[in-house]
Amino acid sequence: MNRTAIHIALDAMGGDHAPQEIVAGAVLAAREFDVAISLVGRPEAIRAELARHHTAGLDLRIEPASQVIHMADKPAEAVRTRRDSSIVVACQLVRKGMADAVVTAGNTGGALAAGILHIGRIRGIRRPALTVPFPTRQGFCVLLDVGANVDVKPEHLQQFAVMGSIYSRRIMGVVQPRVRILSNGEEPGKGSQLVLEATKRLQHTPGIHFLGNIEGRDIVEDLADVVVTDGFTGNVLIKTAEGVGKLIKTILIEELTATRISSLGALLAKSALQRLGRRLDDSEYGGAVLLGLSNLLVVGHGSSNANAIRHAIRVAKQAVESHMVEEIQAGIQELASQVRTHVPTP
Amino acid sequence: MNRTAIHIALDAMGGDHAPQEIVAGAVLAAREFDVAISLVGRPEAIRAELARHHTAGLDLRIEPASQVIHMADKPAEAVRTRRDSSIVVACQLVRKGMADAVVTAGNTGGALAAGILHIGRIRGIRRPALTVPFPTRQGFCVLLDVGANVDVKPEHLQQFAVMGSIYSRRIMGVVQPRVRILSNGEEPGKGSQLVLEATKRLQHTPGIHFLGNIEGRDIVEDLADVVVTDGFTGNVLIKTAEGVGKLIKTILIEELTATRISSLGALLAKSALQRLGRRLDDSEYGGAVLLGLSNLLVVGHGSSNANAIRHAIRVAKQAVESHMVEEIQAGIQELASQVRTHVPTP
Repeated sequence: MNRTAIHIALDAMGGDHAPQEIVAGAVLAAREFDVAISLVGRPEAIRAELARHHTAGLDLRIEPASQVIHMADKPAEAVRTRRDSSIVVACQLVRKGMADAVVTAGNTGGALAAGILHIGRIRGIRRPALTVPFPTRQGFCVLLDVGANVDVKPEHLQQFAVMGSIYSRRIMGVVQPRVRILSNGEEPGKGSQLVLEATKRLQHTPGIHFLGNIEGRDIVEDLADVVVTDGFTGNVLIKTAEGVGKLIKTILIEELTATRISSLGALLAKSALQRLGRRLDDSEYGGAVLLGLSNLLVVGHGSSNANAIRHAIRVAKQAVESHMVEEIQAGIQELASQVRTHVPTP
Repeated sequence: MNRTAIHIALDAMGGDHAPQEIVAGAVLAAREFDVAISLVGRPEAIRAELARHHTAGLDLRIEPASQVIHMADKPAEAVRTRRDSSIVVACQLVRKGMADAVVTAGNTGGALAAGILHIGRIRGIRRPALTVPFPTRQGFCVLLDVGANVDVKPEHLQQFAVMGSIYSRRIMGVVQPRVRILSNGEEPGKGSQLVLEATKRLQHTPGIHFLGNIEGRDIVEDLADVVVTDGFTGNVLIKTAEGVGKLIKTILIEELTATRISSLGALLAKSALQRLGRRLDDSEYGGAVLLGLSNLLVVGHGSSNANAIRHAIRVAKQAVESHMVEEIQAGIQELASQVRTHVPTP
């Protein structure tokens, strides 16, 4: 057992396949990445799942929490009233310094509320932002915010750009991330009031490589490593992409099985369709991350399986090791000092 | 020749394949739908194209316009300075009562600016809205606004709902169109300030069947016939859908041709892929329509071929025959009188 290992608080009860897949992912991650993991939730349920795995030599602990916030629960209310829910207890473990990061596949709204309330924000961060990898031709870019803040101000978008750039460097390995702002046209001057005002700020933001507007259609074209937007538009964007992907898949399967010849084609094309799915799957980036908190909070898909949980834990470890939170803190301080000394042209 | 035929002013110079495909589409439409068409543009270019078709007995006229607004031009400026451009002249034909509707496949921004400036708005309409068919599992829904107005107010969204419902009834043939507002969650109470305020109005809007929020992912699920949103979000939505569709196609083709077995699969699946393309293709709805003007303006894709132009002309004819503009006018008047007598709860 490694005494100085990075310690993850894992919400064992959150997600469509909890606790089975969550516990299985924890076992995989503990073995592969040499992390300590506190499995937070109902001890008997966690113990029963652990019994199905070889866990000798792994640093897997059980942290009791008697309540669960379900997918259908109202997030803010549930977090306020269920103080002994697994996500709240996981966040408190981090707050108390007993763990370095939280990983959950539970109710996203609940995770955001618990994170903001019980982990707390980095000093100077106005609004934490939900950040996701979004597929492009060559790989993935980073998109934020996708739902933590529906109504934002230009200065929030500026902070998102700083946080997104650091995430892109530390987690995606991009040396100089290209930052763009989502708009309704690629030309300068195109955009809502919010976009136009944020653009003026982004042009004078230290530590980021800002390249102007990007349209929804060009995100997939590898023209940006970081795309900033408000949480309303970002949420519509990722859900539209999901809906369109599902629609294309459904229609394609209908059409592929419509005739005997194309059914044979479908059979032969099957592995290609599977590889397509893998290339668009963002689970190796651990799903969404709430950036701007004092410790990392990774929010995996509700449908996360063991492998997705394993990746989410890997991302959490990588973020802690690379001191991502500290770097965001420094970036936000630099921004604040620049704002004090250099007022951007109105 | 039918003296009382519906008369379309067609921008013969607008679009990637102008004037060839535009003129070819006009010939198809004139023959099939018994409409009179004024081809607006450079007479010699139009005459040369017409010479390649059998046009005997068709009511095809040439209306000279010496200038063109190209795809790369700045719309508002081009419309202001090029008074003899084909789109401006086409809009003026309608203004003068010499044509019933305008069809163009040219620069969208140019068409919007020319339409608003030279056709004019319906009395009471605050903001005309760019309206497109969006694919769903079973067919198409109507989405507006997708780019005419980046910053809107709740009362604008209310007018969009009225106009979209009438379009859905008259062009898509839906008896009682289900109206929803695009938001970042399906639950009531989820949404930006704009969405929450617009929702209160939509709940008290006469003549529409309002069902609440819809998420980006559910638009394809046939849960709404009309989806209203601001032009910024709507523009991001349709362009994201386009980008994701293109990305999936590219990756699928890469994967399908990666091995010899899947290459054979690709060959056998080819017709299925073509049928997929046709089911997602909105050109039979004529592309986008700018609703809220005193006469219909149909804006086809820049890449429109003859068949897309033919459909655009059919939609224009259908709208004129069904008195869509008059119905919108009546709907907006009803809305105005209701607003005067019934102030919605704040």
